[in-house]
Amino acid sequence: MNKVLFRVATHQDLPDIVRMLGDDKLGSQRERCEEPLPESYYAAFEQINSDPNHELIVAELDGKAIGTLHLIFLPSISYQGRLRAQVESVRVDREYQNLGIGSEMMQWAIERANERGAHVVQLTTHNSREDAHRFYEKLGFEKSHLGMKLSLK
Amino acid sequence: MNKVLFRVATHQDLPDIVRMLGDDKLGSQRERCEEPLPESYYAAFEQINSDPNHELIVAELDGKAIGTLHLIFLPSISYQGRLRAQVESVRVDREYQNLGIGSEMMQWAIERANERGAHVVQLTTHNSREDAHRFYEKLGFEKSHLGMKLSLK
Repeated sequence: MNKVLFRVATHQDLPDIVRMLGDDKLGSQRERCEEPLPESYYAAFEQINSDPNHELIVAELDGKAIGTLHLIFLPSISYQGRLRAQVESVRVDREYQNLGIGSEMMQWAIERANERGAHVVQLTTHNSREDAHRFYEKLGFEKSHLGMKLSLK
Repeated sequence: MNKVLFRVATHQDLPDIVRMLGDDKLGSQRERCEEPLPESYYAAFEQINSDPNHELIVAELDGKAIGTLHLIFLPSISYQGRLRAQVESVRVDREYQNLGIGSEMMQWAIERANERGAHVVQLTTHNSREDAHRFYEKLGFEKSHLGMKLSLK
């Protein structure tokens, strides 16, 4: 297998990113993988792309986007004002799963968080995603917290 | 009891905020409540204060800061590009606990998240904070996720 590259997503990657987010038991109920994509996705992309504390990442193999994650840097008063890193929306294309690409992508994100001086990488994963729990534990993450959500309108 | 006011924190509130963060079984190991405060707190405050997606809030009673939370708005591709709200660093001054102030402060934050169009309010709370789990459940939060953390240097 050729080397997987990690880079910041462009506008042109959005259809691939939304397809990966939607191709999943939870994501399929949330996303609209239409052509053209609903405008709301592009509006969110512009906000993310213009904020230096957000890095929307794609993993690219042979010119194709096959993985994605959203890395966020959060300034915080706690821990003596140190920066946190947060990872959201991690996906690997169904056809490229179980090849170590997710792990490589997360290691890249951890390295990036280190470079920017974050003291922690935090994420939440749905209680039902047991494979993900094991995956993150192997990468050194601890199940120290409860993730709670309140849905609004 | 007089009415509790909620407002965006100023530079002058930082010592009170850090004192509340540190006056806690977990926070006491993390914070340095010195006078003057370490410069790192002020640097973080400036970053938070200059970013419209961050709202560091204090609850004020009779001119005194007696509660704090950090409300963060996160643009996201998932959920059709809808905004998320995240709550971090929630504290009520020890002398004003069990008076409903934390609940009022969280309801204020939920209302604010609604106003800004967030589709969810998310937070994590340490596994050991069982009182907090019950507190957030009463407010309608669901224990749907596992919160995982990886400490860096």
